[in-house]
Amino acid sequence: MSCVFCAIVEGAAPAIRIHEDDDYLAILDIRPFTRGHTLVIPKRHTVDLTDTPPETVAAMTVLGQRIAKAARASGLHADGNNIAINDGKAAFQTVFHIHLHVVPRRDGDKLSFAKGMLVRRDSDREETGRLLREALAQIDTAELD
Amino acid sequence: MSCVFCAIVEGAAPAIRIHEDDDYLAILDIRPFTRGHTLVIPKRHTVDLTDTPPETVAAMTVLGQRIAKAARASGLHADGNNIAINDGKAAFQTVFHIHLHVVPRRDGDKLSFAKGMLVRRDSDREETGRLLREALAQIDTAELD
Ligand SMILES: [Zn+2]
Ligand SMILES: [Zn+2]
Repeated sequence: MSCVFCAIVEGAAPAIRIHEDDDYLAILDIRPFTRGHTLVIPKRHTVDLTDTPPETVAAMTVLGQRIAKAARASGLHADGNNIAINDGKAAFQTVFHIHLHVVPRRDGDKLSFAKGMLVRRDSDREETGRLLREALAQIDTAELD
Repeated sequence: MSCVFCAIVEGAAPAIRIHEDDDYLAILDIRPFTRGHTLVIPKRHTVDLTDTPPETVAAMTVLGQRIAKAARASGLHADGNNIAINDGKAAFQTVFHIHLHVVPRRDGDKLSFAKGMLVRRDSDREETGRLLREALAQIDTAELD
């Protein structure tokens, strides 16, 4: 077994973590389309939508929604987000451990988005991670109030 | 109020229905990226990920998973699917009633996918709808067995 996401879950490979709980991990994509591009990963290994339990697909997406809200509220100042699951090689899936993409977007960013899809680099990943974690914590606090 | 998806839900605007239950509707996109491109729509109007309840986001995605499985099992012979939620105008959202895209993909379809994003037409929508409904029914039956 050599699944890069399982290795990250086990702590055997590095990642910038945005969120972690018993069953899910959210990390920054190492080749981001935009700043804050995050992957939501169930800790239990499944491949795609054919073998992943519906409850897992649901929980993964709800966590993605929280991160999308955090991206809007965060210092990244997102105006929206693309949420995506690439289900299968035919659909551009490259890591065969199911995951959901959250890609923060800004108004009028079409050109930088297109460039980002080619360049796929963030010059300050640590700060990006900090901004998203901070916004997630604020959302959690607001919901508890 | 002039929301095209609310009009479809109310039966005041036409659509090719793939699935309907008390709370959700799935219809063919009138401008499909690929054959079988389907939209999952909650009947209750909300705009995007900021105002849609997590339970709705979850159920919408789980229905999308069922349709993705159906697309693979169907006469459309999908090898995978892109699942997407465009959350906000900045993220290419064009109808401001939340929805989830299911875009069936075939192995090696990159060129026709790119063409489909420009042309966005299906010459036999009725048959496409029939194939997806048939596969969904088969999945339902298989799960009841
Ligand atoms: Zn894995
Ligand atoms: Zn509506």
